[in-house]
Amino acid sequence: MASVNPFVAETTFNVRYAETDMMGIVHHSCYIVYFEEARSAYSRQRGRPYSEFQHLGYYLTVTEVNVRYAKPAVYDQQITVRVWIAEMKSRGMTFQYEVVDTKTGETLVTGYTKHVCITHDGKVAVLPALWREWGTS
Amino acid sequence: MASVNPFVAETTFNVRYAETDMMGIVHHSCYIVYFEEARSAYSRQRGRPYSEFQHLGYYLTVTEVNVRYAKPAVYDQQITVRVWIAEMKSRGMTFQYEVVDTKTGETLVTGYTKHVCITHDGKVAVLPALWREWGTS
Amino acid sequence: MASVNPFVAETTFNVRYAETDMMGIVHHSCYIVYFEEARSAYSRQRGRPYSEFQHLGYYLTVTEVNVRYAKPAVYDQQITVRVWIAEMKSRGMTFQYEVVDTKTGETLVTGYTKHVCITHDGKVAVLPALWREWGTS
Amino acid sequence: MASVNPFVAETTFNVRYAETDMMGIVHHSCYIVYFEEARSAYSRQRGRPYSEFQHLGYYLTVTEVNVRYAKPAVYDQQITVRVWIAEMKSRGMTFQYEVVDTKTGETLVTGYTKHVCITHDGKVAVLPALWREWGTS
Repeated sequence: MASVNPFVAETTFNVRYAETDMMGIVHHSCYIVYFEEARSAYSRQRGRPYSEFQHLGYYLTVTEVNVRYAKPAVYDQQITVRVWIAEMKSRGMTFQYEVVDTKTGETLVTGYTKHVCITHDGKVAVLPALWREWGTS
Repeated sequence: MASVNPFVAETTFNVRYAETDMMGIVHHSCYIVYFEEARSAYSRQRGRPYSEFQHLGYYLTVTEVNVRYAKPAVYDQQITVRVWIAEMKSRGMTFQYEVVDTKTGETLVTGYTKHVCITHDGKVAVLPALWREWGTS
Repeated sequence: MASVNPFVAETTFNVRYAETDMMGIVHHSCYIVYFEEARSAYSRQRGRPYSEFQHLGYYLTVTEVNVRYAKPAVYDQQITVRVWIAEMKSRGMTFQYEVVDTKTGETLVTGYTKHVCITHDGKVAVLPALWREWGTS
Repeated sequence: MASVNPFVAETTFNVRYAETDMMGIVHHSCYIVYFEEARSAYSRQRGRPYSEFQHLGYYLTVTEVNVRYAKPAVYDQQITVRVWIAEMKSRGMTFQYEVVDTKTGETLVTGYTKHVCITHDGKVAVLPALWREWGTS
């Protein structure tokens, strides 16, 4: 296991109406999409959009997802998703997340996702240098 | 305009919880997905799954969607989606849809989608023979 | 038909990865959600979030959706959705939309949605004054 | 911890096109929806649709989700989702899942979800007797 990078990316947006369910709250599956959008923001903010890695022939496939729900988000609520790398390995990494109410800072949801780097034909690969740097600088 | 084929495909399923919104009904965007699933059923029932066309190098891209909402579907309701080809052209077609309550037959939603055949590099193409047959037999 | 209001709301965001499909482009159903998010932005920008109307006991239910696809959006692309009221009636209205590439201004998708004001028990109602104003000022 | 009920519900369906992403596989968030649909099937197969519980004034809210991805599902693939109760408590339960290829039986995804019973005003409640029975018969 390599060293852990303290860089934290944040992305803020309003909950969409389509993301609610008949309980009147955000459907629990939507946070997986919020996590993914936070990873996209992380890549953009580090100057290397995820689409670059795809063009280079790599995918960062998801091997595990875990979400804990503390308090539901509701329609139009402004929320902030924070993401950072919790663990960096030669062929993958773990991202950790915190979804908070933007104004109050109250924690709504936490979670992590584990990833493995694969080539476009599905073979596990060593992370390209551009990505490995995220764990050390 | 070629002749219109009267073949009607039907697919029946229960509304998923995730498809509801805070109004307590199926979110209006979900019917677009139901329409698409009905097209998949149409292809399967005609013995030529859509995946075959993709493997042959074609996509049936969507150029227009129209949906009219008469009565909302709700969670767990069993619904049937009917689809048929309303118009067949050399490079595309129009599918028409009816979403009904499976038990009562009551119409919930109607609509149509227009499609153009393209190759995987995005060029408009004449429909392969396998598809053109759908308009004449 | 009442007078048409020229107020145009704009909302800008990046395409989410989950919104793509195996064609490598944004799935056509997602634009319905983008339209809805644009309506939310419209309400916010006019100082009356849609959630207020819901709390007052109203819904703006969707009776028709139409989308025309000119050019596909792709992952991470920055897009801007423009929305304005094209027609205002006593019990409903028509919103019109334009989805463009934020940088080039190129039109990707256009469409409209028709709405009717209903109470929470499903009865058609005259639009509350707060909403009717959108058509005249 | 109460006794564990061995009843296993199964639901089988084809992957929808809209559920794929630009990697050409089912987006990882969709399995959360498949899990939920399996719970709906579980309720139906035990003779007590989830909608009944909602009408009685209860929700089975989700407090944690965990998904492990072994092999991706693809468009049109016929998959079967198996679900059973792994743990039953007075105020909640844990469901466990297995998503397999219907024809080969190969495991694609596994996971669990934890739930707590709440009333419609959000208070934690003892599971109604109808639900508690699932853990013992």
